[in-house]
Amino acid sequence: MHAPYGIFKPSPADAYRVGILIKDTVLDLSFLGPEFAQSSLNQFIALGFDAWESTRLKIAKLISEKNPQLKYYPAKSCILKLPVDIGDYTDFFTSEVHATNLGKMFRPDMPPLTPQFKTMPTAYHGRASSVIVSGTKIKRPSGQILLNNQTSPIYSPTQKLDIEVELGFIIGMGNNLGEPISIKNAHKHIFGVVIVNDWSARDIQRWEYVPLGPFLGKNFGTSISPWVMPMSALKDFWVDADPQDPIPLDYLFENKFKLLDIKLEVLIKSKNMKNYVTISNTNSRYLYWSPNQMVAHHTVNGCNLRTGDLLATGTISGPNADQYGSLIELSWNGKNAIKLNDQESRFFLEDGDSVIIRGRCEKSGMVLELGEVEGTII
Amino acid sequence: MHAPYGIFKPSPADAYRVGILIKDTVLDLSFLGPEFAQSSLNQFIALGFDAWESTRLKIAKLISEKNPQLKYYPAKSCILKLPVDIGDYTDFFTSEVHATNLGKMFRPDMPPLTPQFKTMPTAYHGRASSVIVSGTKIKRPSGQILLNNQTSPIYSPTQKLDIEVELGFIIGMGNNLGEPISIKNAHKHIFGVVIVNDWSARDIQRWEYVPLGPFLGKNFGTSISPWVMPMSALKDFWVDADPQDPIPLDYLFENKFKLLDIKLEVLIKSKNMKNYVTISNTNSRYLYWSPNQMVAHHTVNGCNLRTGDLLATGTISGPNADQYGSLIELSWNGKNAIKLNDQESRFFLEDGDSVIIRGRCEKSGMVLELGEVEGTII
Repeated sequence: MHAPYGIFKPSPADAYRVGILIKDTVLDLSFLGPEFAQSSLNQFIALGFDAWESTRLKIAKLISEKNPQLKYYPAKSCILKLPVDIGDYTDFFTSEVHATNLGKMFRPDMPPLTPQFKTMPTAYHGRASSVIVSGTKIKRPSGQILLNNQTSPIYSPTQKLDIEVELGFIIGMGNNLGEPISIKNAHKHIFGVVIVNDWSARDIQRWEYVPLGPFLGKNFGTSISPWVMPMSALKDFWVDADPQDPIPLDYLFENKFKLLDIKLEVLIKSKNMKNYVTISNTNSRYLYWSPNQMVAHHTVNGCNLRTGDLLATGTISGPNADQYGSLIELSWNGKNAIKLNDQESRFFLEDGDSVIIRGRCEKSGMVLELGEVEGTII
Repeated sequence: MHAPYGIFKPSPADAYRVGILIKDTVLDLSFLGPEFAQSSLNQFIALGFDAWESTRLKIAKLISEKNPQLKYYPAKSCILKLPVDIGDYTDFFTSEVHATNLGKMFRPDMPPLTPQFKTMPTAYHGRASSVIVSGTKIKRPSGQILLNNQTSPIYSPTQKLDIEVELGFIIGMGNNLGEPISIKNAHKHIFGVVIVNDWSARDIQRWEYVPLGPFLGKNFGTSISPWVMPMSALKDFWVDADPQDPIPLDYLFENKFKLLDIKLEVLIKSKNMKNYVTISNTNSRYLYWSPNQMVAHHTVNGCNLRTGDLLATGTISGPNADQYGSLIELSWNGKNAIKLNDQESRFFLEDGDSVIIRGRCEKSGMVLELGEVEGTII
């Protein structure tokens, strides 16, 4: 049994509780104990690695026995919310193609990849308060923008509203301040994975980001999928990756270097369109750094992770132009129109546009759906 | 009555509760209602601006009546903790002198002040999990460092451990995602102020910070004072400031531009020294941007602040070399030794060093002590 966990209520009057999604139905887990009768997964996932596996086995047994205590609800009618209380949200920058593309656009006079890109998984702190569940509307943000050939900024709604295709790892057990997590133990701290759309306002970002990094260009909203796929469900979907060059420092070195093989499809629909069209197909195997390396690096200085923390990969772009994970790359910063259909094309998002990012693993007949994250611009 | 709020327990076996510090004693406020019988100030300060003022008046009345319900404890024997549950911690960069000094050291080939410094209060997201209360020991962090004339980094304990003298504003009432706080209403959202020491590892910071900003160079610890001085107590300690040039955009424009006049003294003591020595005296009036402007800018894109959020000013440096708010400035990145006494001097912090930052307002005979934040390196 490999199924994702989330928080749901069967109807508006009910209390939130933990459930798992099995095809089109949600199995109510609240009868399993107080840690499952909660409005977040935090209490459950804080129990740690062994508890995650024993819970999985227990649920599988109950299902196979057709235990009469099991209550199922149609997924369509369930009300979902953010699956975890997120203490801190960290956004990494681990796709070599994405980093190279943005370097070329934002810093054309310098080497596109900064010198530390291949010595560490670089990251910055994102905003935890504005992480929102799939389906939440995104209000177009305003801010300071420097127009071409100007020296003073204007106040304006963003004219370059973008998406970022990412995976997000949910921390199960944290660490104490001052006690790094070793690369060997890192996997025991990662409970599961969600699909992330880290909405970005490229014009606001560009004007503000030197020297402190992204801030208002990002913190108006980050959408995540409501269902958290446990890492244990992904065990068959790791692929051998090329050895990293240069060889990472010991605290980041993994003997058999593998990356997750998760297909990520990006779909868009304008308010005038009936159906979504696919504008990109990328894959998490194109990342340069692994989730264990992200955890080991994040804590190498003693920084403490807490249960529910979200560690996102940063935009995932593949080597081909139809594998880019953001519109700024797909349209090359507004130079090449992205054709949606005979009537419409896009450089960046317009009001009324809806975007879905969908995750899926496939291998020798096995299929694992990771669900999707959706957002509509208003 | 102007006194700071904090969270304390009289003895280890007791529960935490809200108190206010009156000279050397702590007045227990837990009898005032359930929002005061909490292990953080969040419930109380979420009540909003009017409730803060009515609570202040109520406490003043009870004290003047010598109400028999009032219980006082000696401050020395009370156990303190972080006064608020911090959802997100934002660190601004609002001292022109500090920004100029760091620009000169880190980016010697470019103008030291980035072009947006005077159009917006720039900021980045810090780490909420590692904000700690005064008195917590600081473990020297390790990480990647690029030594001079090298192209590959080493893994090493930081050799440039530093302090940053800051003020931190505590958000009382937040805002909904998508609904900016106007500059006019900003003051109603700020409950009070703490003293902040944002510990920094300059060598780790320098190697990692382009293009995403500070991360592991900062997130190993940020110390704050345990007592939150309400903004209402500071009303006599604002000073007229020079009009900002250029004039800020409307959403940042304040008619009568004033800054807080809080003296900040930095003291240091090595493990071999008996007494602290003062190494810097700075003042929050040297900041370029006001707290209201920080709140208005932070939310202009719709970003939501929450009760308990910490908005720090960034390092506060005055124009003179004995008014700098960090060792990297006081020693000019290791060039000029900072003399502590006949035996000892410092470029950066050594193990066993203790640092205190103390805040105080003075005006025509009135004195308001903001307390202090202490930390010792281990």
